[in-house]
Amino acid sequence: MSETTIAASASQLAAARVMERADHLADISETPRGLTRIYLSPEHLRANALVGHWMEQAGMRVWQDSVGNICGRYEGEQAGAPALLLGSHLDTVRDAGRYDGMLGVLTAIEVVQALHDRGRRLPMAVEIVGFGDEEGTRFGITLLGSRGLTGDWPSEWLQQQDAQGISVAQALANAGLDGANIGQAARNREEIAAYLELHIEQGPCLEQEGLALGVVQAINGARRLTCRFTGLAGHAGTVPMNHRQDALAASAEWMMAVESITKQHGRQQVATIGTLSCAPGAVNVIPGEVTLTLDVRGPEDEALEALQQALLAQAGDIAQRRGVQFSAEEYYRMAATRCDPELQQRLVQAVSRVQGRALSLPSGAGHDAIAISGCWPVGMLFVRCQGGISHHPAESVMAADVALAIEAFCYAVNAVACGDS
Amino acid sequence: MSETTIAASASQLAAARVMERADHLADISETPRGLTRIYLSPEHLRANALVGHWMEQAGMRVWQDSVGNICGRYEGEQAGAPALLLGSHLDTVRDAGRYDGMLGVLTAIEVVQALHDRGRRLPMAVEIVGFGDEEGTRFGITLLGSRGLTGDWPSEWLQQQDAQGISVAQALANAGLDGANIGQAARNREEIAAYLELHIEQGPCLEQEGLALGVVQAINGARRLTCRFTGLAGHAGTVPMNHRQDALAASAEWMMAVESITKQHGRQQVATIGTLSCAPGAVNVIPGEVTLTLDVRGPEDEALEALQQALLAQAGDIAQRRGVQFSAEEYYRMAATRCDPELQQRLVQAVSRVQGRALSLPSGAGHDAIAISGCWPVGMLFVRCQGGISHHPAESVMAADVALAIEAFCYAVNAVACGDS
Repeated sequence: MSETTIAASASQLAAARVMERADHLADISETPRGLTRIYLSPEHLRANALVGHWMEQAGMRVWQDSVGNICGRYEGEQAGAPALLLGSHLDTVRDAGRYDGMLGVLTAIEVVQALHDRGRRLPMAVEIVGFGDEEGTRFGITLLGSRGLTGDWPSEWLQQQDAQGISVAQALANAGLDGANIGQAARNREEIAAYLELHIEQGPCLEQEGLALGVVQAINGARRLTCRFTGLAGHAGTVPMNHRQDALAASAEWMMAVESITKQHGRQQVATIGTLSCAPGAVNVIPGEVTLTLDVRGPEDEALEALQQALLAQAGDIAQRRGVQFSAEEYYRMAATRCDPELQQRLVQAVSRVQGRALSLPSGAGHDAIAISGCWPVGMLFVRCQGGISHHPAESVMAADVALAIEAFCYAVNAVACGDS
Repeated sequence: MSETTIAASASQLAAARVMERADHLADISETPRGLTRIYLSPEHLRANALVGHWMEQAGMRVWQDSVGNICGRYEGEQAGAPALLLGSHLDTVRDAGRYDGMLGVLTAIEVVQALHDRGRRLPMAVEIVGFGDEEGTRFGITLLGSRGLTGDWPSEWLQQQDAQGISVAQALANAGLDGANIGQAARNREEIAAYLELHIEQGPCLEQEGLALGVVQAINGARRLTCRFTGLAGHAGTVPMNHRQDALAASAEWMMAVESITKQHGRQQVATIGTLSCAPGAVNVIPGEVTLTLDVRGPEDEALEALQQALLAQAGDIAQRRGVQFSAEEYYRMAATRCDPELQQRLVQAVSRVQGRALSLPSGAGHDAIAISGCWPVGMLFVRCQGGISHHPAESVMAADVALAIEAFCYAVNAVACGDS
């Protein structure tokens, strides 16, 4: 990696353009205030057209695929060479921030723009995809864009309906697409060599380390459980403290244990109790039943399983000691996605080069890379965001960080495409 | 207290009659199944008539007062002597048990019946009141019956409406009463010497001590607060455990402290968190705000205040250490009602006589005695109920306990009325 792939001054110009384009895309919203852009909406198609236009300006051949992803290809030294795929998503949650997803697409365009500006071709082609759906805001199912590329769209997805009763098939038709052609979006394995995604961190780690960039080791696996403590409801005035089978007191003890046990299991795992309800639920009645949710995540499935088992075992112990019942039901499980070690190594080198050192960290949130990893090696670069805030209008990144990100992204793309050691 | 006031065999017959009459009253319900009998309802008036009939059979002069209490008087050795007042309530919660309130009225009738059967008169008259409203089921305001006797009915109560929009004034009129005459129910101080109330315990203490009867030291004071921990909501996947300002984790720590601190503050105080809600309240979001209720009760206002302050101070400490905010607002306060020491002593002697020893305990629930204590000395006798269950169809007492209770009640009434030492 001897060659400078983009000058610092050029990266600052590129970052300024990314910030401006992010603002421009943020205006393409179904709501006049805030940003909401959902899959296959008129706003989605407008964003695709605009992003496609920017791709063309960067010297790319552009098309919209059969599931509504906007795609561009910058040929390598030899036409038809396998591509290094760069991408992220262009859809948003409701009342979203303007960088979650879009930043990865816009910075990727700058990487190609830098090659195009120098008339440079790499041993691999470079492709960019702006995925049409990652968040799942419209249909409740996620990663529709990236699973179009991997070719594992379940056919029943076409019948899935949005809140207005519009099916995916109908939404495709409304957008000028055809549900019968979904399979055309799938890419052959040999056409793509690897996938790199740049994304805002959506967490506070980089900010707290004082670093602009980080390298993702893995996208956390996640499990969600509904848990229940069942004790005995009673009169808040007449049942002495020592005679209670208080389901909420048991829950409180367990919640403390969830916090401490999870901390003991290492820095990279998290456990959250996000909802809790008491029954009967009156100020003057001892709670007889508490229902609460547990969300556990971590970068290693085995370690995550160990954490989950430790938490449930502790709940059982607490329940037994307090004379109450405990039950738990897992209703969601996503395996951890490990980033490719070689791509991680490339990204660590690139990040170290622009900011002196690289922090490797897990991703707590899900990304298009989860789907892509089913077919191709994936790597991810994280950019610091203010306060770790995302899925909120206050989502914010610094232009200086974006400039560093573009520099590192350029280095990494060159290194991967050239096979530099 | 040398004289036997009721033979054991007579008390068993009396207890059998009480059980039968409780079943009979339980059939007077606005619902075909279960027991619901609310203030000034047709069922209330039917219950009054039946109880008045039983009072007459026990040799009492009977009247319904201007707030709808059913009253009876058994004259003493001299007509017009001050009365020892016995009583409890005849109204119920919805889907109630059949002993809460009614047992105190029915056993009081047996006390008078025992005097009447022997043609015995005491130095005091004995009066019985079946109060028309203690629970507050209909109008949300409580103790309407007993506050009729004490004469401190706020005039605005007449405008209070039930769920159907019927005011107290209208309900009185529908029952053949007149809101303008409320004051006629008030009794002169000198007409009544003292008040004794027998009631089911509504808690598990007597059962766990293996005792049929207990003597109430005080009716617990109570305070209710709305409390709030405010932290920072965040992504359940991306915010590491050490960087969280989790309002629910803070609440959990406090709930544990509430339990342990309350236990440390002595056996007679209780603290309950009966409701809790999380915001935003999603499985994958760290709770940013938790609202919960605190109900604290105890027999001594000073000790209760100390407990409340200790709990709130602990909440503040926890909040500070965790970087979250805590606030609390007290919205309800009822002072503790101390039972009269001399009446307690009489009851302890009477209970000891029938079951060998007496347990003194606080009452966690409210009773008519709270209102009565504003004008006259009050004493209360508790009867064991199965599992401490009340306000539920499963509410249950044993006939053998009721027989002991009648015996003790007879001893106590004789002792108080005769001024035995």
